[in-house]
Amino acid sequence: MDKISKFISQNKKRWLLQLSEYLNIPSISAPGIFGNKDILEAANWLVGHFKKIGFKSKLIKTPYDPLVYAEYKNPENNFTLLIYCHTDVQPADPLELWNTPPFKTTIKNGKIFARGVSDSKGHLFAYIKGIESVLKTEGKLPVNIKFIIDCDEEANELSLPWFLNKNSKKLKANAVLVSAGAMVTKNTPSICHGYRGLLATEIKIKTLKQNLHSGSFGGAVLNSAEHLSKLIAQFRDKNGRILIPGFYENVLSVRKSKKVYAGVHCGKKDFLKITGAKNSVCEKNFSLDECLAGRPTFEVNGIKSGSADGVFQYIIPAQASAKISLRLVPDQKPDDIFEKLKKFVQKITSKEARIEIKKIDWARPILISKKSNFAKILEESLEEIFNKKAVWYREGGAVPIIYNLQRISKEVFMVGFGLPDDNIHAPNEKLNAADFYKEIKFSSILIKRLGGTKLN
Amino acid sequence: MDKISKFISQNKKRWLLQLSEYLNIPSISAPGIFGNKDILEAANWLVGHFKKIGFKSKLIKTPYDPLVYAEYKNPENNFTLLIYCHTDVQPADPLELWNTPPFKTTIKNGKIFARGVSDSKGHLFAYIKGIESVLKTEGKLPVNIKFIIDCDEEANELSLPWFLNKNSKKLKANAVLVSAGAMVTKNTPSICHGYRGLLATEIKIKTLKQNLHSGSFGGAVLNSAEHLSKLIAQFRDKNGRILIPGFYENVLSVRKSKKVYAGVHCGKKDFLKITGAKNSVCEKNFSLDECLAGRPTFEVNGIKSGSADGVFQYIIPAQASAKISLRLVPDQKPDDIFEKLKKFVQKITSKEARIEIKKIDWARPILISKKSNFAKILEESLEEIFNKKAVWYREGGAVPIIYNLQRISKEVFMVGFGLPDDNIHAPNEKLNAADFYKEIKFSSILIKRLGGTKLN
Repeated sequence: MDKISKFISQNKKRWLLQLSEYLNIPSISAPGIFGNKDILEAANWLVGHFKKIGFKSKLIKTPYDPLVYAEYKNPENNFTLLIYCHTDVQPADPLELWNTPPFKTTIKNGKIFARGVSDSKGHLFAYIKGIESVLKTEGKLPVNIKFIIDCDEEANELSLPWFLNKNSKKLKANAVLVSAGAMVTKNTPSICHGYRGLLATEIKIKTLKQNLHSGSFGGAVLNSAEHLSKLIAQFRDKNGRILIPGFYENVLSVRKSKKVYAGVHCGKKDFLKITGAKNSVCEKNFSLDECLAGRPTFEVNGIKSGSADGVFQYIIPAQASAKISLRLVPDQKPDDIFEKLKKFVQKITSKEARIEIKKIDWARPILISKKSNFAKILEESLEEIFNKKAVWYREGGAVPIIYNLQRISKEVFMVGFGLPDDNIHAPNEKLNAADFYKEIKFSSILIKRLGGTKLN
Repeated sequence: MDKISKFISQNKKRWLLQLSEYLNIPSISAPGIFGNKDILEAANWLVGHFKKIGFKSKLIKTPYDPLVYAEYKNPENNFTLLIYCHTDVQPADPLELWNTPPFKTTIKNGKIFARGVSDSKGHLFAYIKGIESVLKTEGKLPVNIKFIIDCDEEANELSLPWFLNKNSKKLKANAVLVSAGAMVTKNTPSICHGYRGLLATEIKIKTLKQNLHSGSFGGAVLNSAEHLSKLIAQFRDKNGRILIPGFYENVLSVRKSKKVYAGVHCGKKDFLKITGAKNSVCEKNFSLDECLAGRPTFEVNGIKSGSADGVFQYIIPAQASAKISLRLVPDQKPDDIFEKLKKFVQKITSKEARIEIKKIDWARPILISKKSNFAKILEESLEEIFNKKAVWYREGGAVPIIYNLQRISKEVFMVGFGLPDDNIHAPNEKLNAADFYKEIKFSSILIKRLGGTKLN
């Protein structure tokens, strides 16, 4: 056993107690509320802990919640790694469904139970301990390290974008690691390098002054609900291909990589169990994983018109509306796609209808190259821990914080040690103790290996 | 001036006072409520009035509101006319919008203002007075008359069907007249002889166990809102023709008659003003009136799926539902059409969807021949009053009471003396005094002419 492994082994128990102390601070965040004292307590606990292990650390004040910053610098090192995580947690309701108190850490059957242990205080703490192990056993670190820790991730996510708008240079690094992902399946080392973008729109159709009697006027006016349906029906062909002209112009082929793993990667059987669908319905000629993460989508999130509930109302509805969102993939641009969508909808709308198309939200798609030296070292470090090749996966959803972090370095990867059954955002959140120790070990190995990294 | 006209002229003022007394009884009916004392007061007032003018009359008790029955019989007469009307009225809310109290009859600028004057107490009273005029001046009537008066038309409409199930023979007549219609335009004598039927359905689609995150699962499952839209989009082609196989099998051509007038007949300009539509949207090759009353329709009354209001929810909705109603024309059968619709929808539904199609309500379409002797006499009597040919029109909506009345005689016509601007069901309901007197005159002429009617 090498020195570092021995050090980790000797300190395991003590660190579990430290982790428990940290988890017991109920650092819940809530939308629109800032400066909560429990959040501040957790932030200050971290600042104190970083200082104790030999890092410089401080709270960064923002108009919202603060950020925790910690840094290790050695002029001899030429590689800087930034680690992003968050210390706030989801509310623990409903409390009655917890088997143990959410803010009194309980270790049982090799599992650590507490709110926030897997999302993401446990993962953050594992990185701290892995890095501490190298520092304590070797007296110095072979790379510079910066930690930036969000106190508001579960609610508003405003402080980091605010800080980056003013001080992105201060956080400059060669690579960014996000300690918030999950393994695609148990014991499968997983690295996320892709995120779909988003374009959220609302379409409103008005055809009449007010709802009309469907007996008296039926057959002689444009029915808004029927017309909306006809519009929606024209967005995709029977192979699932989106029909907006020019939509696929900038779509990068997913076939460049041999295999795409999706964040909700699971066998077909599990997929059907989770969704309750009779079958998966994918774009023709693409696999389930490709469709879940590597292909753009068209989804109707909601439609509404006239009277659909309760007593039958014999009306011709005057208006109809739909919420429609598209998931985008590299290198589609939300603005460009919105213009194309608008033009398409206007073209297929009857001249008897008044139509309004609004852009509600958007996010850029992201795909990060797996070919850098940093990516290679990530893979090697994971393989050393798991004795297996790491899989590269993509998230189907948009994660706007990744886009913000790319202002620090284009290389932002999310390495997962959580598991789909960790109950994040739910009662009885847990983290397997074995995975916690693996993550400590992983971060120590990563830091050692990064010591010799050539910059790309 | 003949004797009858003179009699009418001499009694005009007195009758207006009687009508006011009758209108001032607030005989409001409300769904599910029976035995309201004001309804009973109005019914008893009618019974008393009928007796006073020489009719036999009584209340018919039912499990719901009573019916008023009145009868004049002479064994010498071989023709019996039944007149159907109702004596209950809509609530008068909102009271603050009335210029005069709704239950204190006011005559102003040649208009009679009161709740129920045009729907339909004024019309019923005009018939009573017209018939009374013949009886008083000639000592007898040349036809037998039966009045059946509903006390529950504005709410439940249960008593007449109940009575007819037990005693349809008692009401047997050679023809039925409904005094509840309106003129298609001012001073246009109008007879209604057609009513569209109805098939009301609800379609529910379920594709998932629960709503899913549109980022994580988008692109790989059947979206219920999109699929519902695709179903709805397949019901009609771009010419407005309904695509359910066999749908037009029993549709009688509207071109058999030279011209079809619709109940909401109005010029194109007025039509656009009333509806607020940019243009009328009719089935190709058919006129506006034909489409409003002589052709079957497909209308979406409401659709609902997922989240369409408020905060954008990035979900794939698990289920979607639509209310869809079809207006039917002779000789389409609601049951047959429902089976055809069900088969059609099942055929075009994806096998990945679970679908439920329910029949919510139905009514048979009705078209009554204009070729009978009774129809001819109706036309002649109207022409004598208006100095114009009567127009035959059709209602776009279903009027199920007509179907019930056809159990008494196949010949059921509705003759209109109301006007579209009479504000029925609204504040400041009125009836033009001139039209009220015309209706008295009309009913006296009709009775006289019917005296010589040959039965068809």
